[in-house]
Amino acid sequence: MPDHPLPALNTWVEVPKNSDFSIYNLPFGVFKNKKLSPRIGIAIGDKIVDLSILDQEGFFATLFLPEGIFLRDSLNDMIALGKTQTKKIRERVQTLLLEGNAELRDHSARGKVMVTRKEAEMLLPVKIGDYTDFYSSSEHATNLGKMFRDPENALLPNWKHLPVGYHGRASSIVVSGTPIHRPKGQFKSPDSAAPMFGPSQKLDFELEVAFITGKQTRLGDSVSTVDAEDFIFGFVLFNDWSARDIQAWEYVPLGPFLGKNFGSSISPWVVTLEALEPFRVAGPTQEPEVLPYLKCENTHSFDINLEVFIQPEEKKPAKISTANFSAMYWNVAQQLAHHTVNGCNINVGDMMASGTISGSAEDSFGSMIELSWNGSRMVKLGEGDERTFIEDGDTVIMKGFAEKDGVRVGFGEVSGQVLPAKPL
Amino acid sequence: MPDHPLPALNTWVEVPKNSDFSIYNLPFGVFKNKKLSPRIGIAIGDKIVDLSILDQEGFFATLFLPEGIFLRDSLNDMIALGKTQTKKIRERVQTLLLEGNAELRDHSARGKVMVTRKEAEMLLPVKIGDYTDFYSSSEHATNLGKMFRDPENALLPNWKHLPVGYHGRASSIVVSGTPIHRPKGQFKSPDSAAPMFGPSQKLDFELEVAFITGKQTRLGDSVSTVDAEDFIFGFVLFNDWSARDIQAWEYVPLGPFLGKNFGSSISPWVVTLEALEPFRVAGPTQEPEVLPYLKCENTHSFDINLEVFIQPEEKKPAKISTANFSAMYWNVAQQLAHHTVNGCNINVGDMMASGTISGSAEDSFGSMIELSWNGSRMVKLGEGDERTFIEDGDTVIMKGFAEKDGVRVGFGEVSGQVLPAKPL
Repeated sequence: MPDHPLPALNTWVEVPKNSDFSIYNLPFGVFKNKKLSPRIGIAIGDKIVDLSILDQEGFFATLFLPEGIFLRDSLNDMIALGKTQTKKIRERVQTLLLEGNAELRDHSARGKVMVTRKEAEMLLPVKIGDYTDFYSSSEHATNLGKMFRDPENALLPNWKHLPVGYHGRASSIVVSGTPIHRPKGQFKSPDSAAPMFGPSQKLDFELEVAFITGKQTRLGDSVSTVDAEDFIFGFVLFNDWSARDIQAWEYVPLGPFLGKNFGSSISPWVVTLEALEPFRVAGPTQEPEVLPYLKCENTHSFDINLEVFIQPEEKKPAKISTANFSAMYWNVAQQLAHHTVNGCNINVGDMMASGTISGSAEDSFGSMIELSWNGSRMVKLGEGDERTFIEDGDTVIMKGFAEKDGVRVGFGEVSGQVLPAKPL
Repeated sequence: MPDHPLPALNTWVEVPKNSDFSIYNLPFGVFKNKKLSPRIGIAIGDKIVDLSILDQEGFFATLFLPEGIFLRDSLNDMIALGKTQTKKIRERVQTLLLEGNAELRDHSARGKVMVTRKEAEMLLPVKIGDYTDFYSSSEHATNLGKMFRDPENALLPNWKHLPVGYHGRASSIVVSGTPIHRPKGQFKSPDSAAPMFGPSQKLDFELEVAFITGKQTRLGDSVSTVDAEDFIFGFVLFNDWSARDIQAWEYVPLGPFLGKNFGSSISPWVVTLEALEPFRVAGPTQEPEVLPYLKCENTHSFDINLEVFIQPEEKKPAKISTANFSAMYWNVAQQLAHHTVNGCNINVGDMMASGTISGSAEDSFGSMIELSWNGSRMVKLGEGDERTFIEDGDTVIMKGFAEKDGVRVGFGEVSGQVLPAKPL
């Protein structure tokens, strides 16, 4: 695809070197603090631009926004204004932050508008309607197939013909920083006749990226691969916590249920499709040829570097995996086209996660079950610690960023600590 | 369980013989008509009691309800008041409708309160948060296992240890009367190397009953079988439309997706748990013994007669199946306890469907795939029509009612016509 050189943008805001939240990014989030009720902001450096104050001060006057549109506890109503409007909002903020622009910089409300990020509590950015999880990494699906099915035919026959996906639980998606209790459930060892009940002994994470839909369809309608990106507002990091022992026992024939729905964690800042534009790359070649409704230009993949860390209690985080979003076999346009080809309707605020993102190298696998090959090898954390699966007290941290020509557009992080199982 | 004789209740409202909506039932629904904005009502006979008018006229004064609680387009806020309040609302309406009670009967607002049901448009009764589908009929699971897996081991090893379930799509659940376009998708015949794309050739229904949750839990908490019914507000009929060819190709390893999420239909009147109280019966004996968290008194099954009709375009409906909800192996208390045992949180307005309800007799199967044994035998409709699966123009109608000592508590019906596939 064409390689657009990035325009040089400078801002009067002090942005630390290597900040995920550069002037090129400007992701949307919902925050509150001791003094402020929930509201919508845009991150830049270590600050949050409080859009509700900007709005009150008349900075969006030419956009004719609905009153109080930023004084909400989710982005949904703002997203529902449509891409034309949300692009204008983001571009207006970008303009206001540019070096040389005195409008906000020298305005008396600047102090109120620019909130210190550390002093803000981030909330779940969207009220999620339906949540779908895909399974779009060939490496991940192959690894799981090798471990649990037939190593010679690790990918199932349907896998290269359609982006396999399933519905997950929306209610238990939480924002980064929310602790997760180790789930309890049934599992069965191969040498036991009956299942047992207890805290999961194989608690895992899954490194994923999820997109949030920004436009609704009517039941019966479909979205083509050409139009799909019009329906995508932005992206977050997604940790699809998984209890492998519960999942293994329950999942035939109808798929994962309690092995997944005890919690998923997302990063609080929604990085817009516009911000990721410079980081488009071609995805893997698809062979065999896909059916016509899945065909598209190979321009819907994004070069996003991903990292996973485990931080044992009171110790330092140790990086255990490095992957890249662009390795996914199925892209977001194909996922959305497939999801709606049968007439399934989507709403503003639906979340569609990629499935575990694994590369081909052993240190690029996106889950402990792959990194430890189902517990058969130890994953080293440094300081003498090692893991097969996640232990109580561990915090799992995922980071993601795109970088090119010295420009960085990042997601911040999604983190979550595992607490011991609650007694029944 | 103890057999409570039903008190004799008579009403001044004219209720047709065999009406599903007797004075004993009083289900909640949301309706509107040409003159009236969406609001909450209770059905009796051929009428709807407009609760918003009753409220305006002061009939609920002693309940101190939030203002405008019945002037909503869903039951959610009312349900969220809690069972103590919703029981009082229903009991107050029952009292007002009793023969000999002149409060409403002789009130000047009676004409405005009593709306003719035929003149009302029923809306989706709840804003559904998450939707879960169980698979709790032993006969249905056995039939499918015989057809597609191993006839000798038709039930999978986990089936009698846990109520198998999976997450479905909430956005595409529609109210009775909404037409459904035949879904398009991928399917593959066994003798073809690659899948093809087109309108489903094996469109099916599934006869189900769903419960609606009435109370939320926090992430990490569980609901015991003893407490489960406190979290259940009421029940509706549920048609889980299914495209068997799409489902067969896509469902390994993560379960049904596009084969199901193009639409599900529900009946508009929510029959409360209280109204079904007289119809409790014991469910099937469970063997092997279930794990402690699934143990419960065998008092959570309900004797609800169910019927399925197919109505070809411009012809009469033909009954093709007669089943009973009480045959389900896993009961609602066990379903909810299982769903939350891992800490999965529930919200007011979640919907949990039973899975296809099939009896042991061939004319009690709850889907075409069972009735026609995957298309190998014709299902007769009368007037010379016969079917293996559902054809364009067909309307599928499901009815349900409990009956005892001359008292009838019914669901009305859920119906939906199948329209031809929309072009892409």
